Amino acid sequence: MSEESRITIGNKPIADYIVSIAILFNQGVKRIIIKGKGDKISKAVAVYNAVRDRMGDVIKLENVRIGSEDRRGKLVSFIEITIEKLI
Amino acid sequence: MSEESRITIGNKPIADYIVSIAILFNQGVKRIIIKGKGDKISKAVAVYNAVRDRMGDVIKLENVRIGSEDRRGKLVSFIEITIEKLI
Repeated sequence: MSEESRITIGNKPIADYIVSIAILFNQGVKRIIIKGKGDKISKAVAVYNAVRDRMGDVIKLENVRIGSEDRRGKLVSFIEITIEKLI
Repeated sequence: MSEESRITIGNKPIADYIVSIAILFNQGVKRIIIKGKGDKISKAVAVYNAVRDRMGDVIKLENVRIGSEDRRGKLVSFIEITIEKLI
């Protein structure tokens, strides 16, 4: 299992992403990057807040990166929220 | 004129926020906090990217903060993007 994993936020319910993150941490992943693009940026922050509310004492917010990237010739905004498991 | 100013993203077009930010910097404001709440988080990042594309060499991204805050008894996600004028 890799030390780092990446989750891109799509159309699934927020609860599904929380479960995926919990499973990854239980499998030994140390660092998870939650990525949201375009109008999924808001949802990525909501996922982070939900994870923090549930696992606040065992994770820490490591980094927040914002910017834009090329997607089929069009610039799309993104956010990357990096969380780390403490224990 | 205060050194720091705050812009909360609402329903106006992105271009309006860019104009407001340009005016504030021209008036001598050194630091602007772009705040987006709930589904306006994505738009706040889009405003930051648009500002960076236009004034990239004279501003720098100083900080990005995410979290949730109480709004009438309900937790709402937010982002605060702090930009500084370099010159």
